[in-house]
Amino acid sequence: MTDINTLSAREALATNLRRLRSERGLSQEALADLAGVHRNYLGGIERRERNVGLDNLERLARALGVSVSELVATA
Amino acid sequence: MTDINTLSAREALATNLRRLRSERGLSQEALADLAGVHRNYLGGIERRERNVGLDNLERLARALGVSVSELVATA
Repeated sequence: MTDINTLSAREALATNLRRLRSERGLSQEALADLAGVHRNYLGGIERRERNVGLDNLERLARALGVSVSELVATA
Repeated sequence: MTDINTLSAREALATNLRRLRSERGLSQEALADLAGVHRNYLGGIERRERNVGLDNLERLARALGVSVSELVATA
């Protein structure tokens, strides 16, 4: 089990999101369109400013082809 | 990778939450107190009625001693 005290969930999500998006060659705008969320909202997530709801986590995970679990993984 | 199309994130969360809570012998009220969320809110999560924010997912995961990733895992 990953130590969840070493990295906050928002930080883990932001890190994973930027990495997965970059690996797929997607801009914030392109991923936002794919996931059906606003590009400004996605920017806010990557800056750890937003308390993302589970439904949007699922939309982002589907758009990236990963599980929600992978999207929030800390390892 | 788990097929995220077979089980919604809310359903996975509700299933994991009930299982983990039960394994620890915690009532909804006891877990709510531990996590710092309202007992009615926790009940709503277990009924898949709430779009839980990432910050509360992290509070619940910490209270249960698991990672956020484990809390939303579909396998």
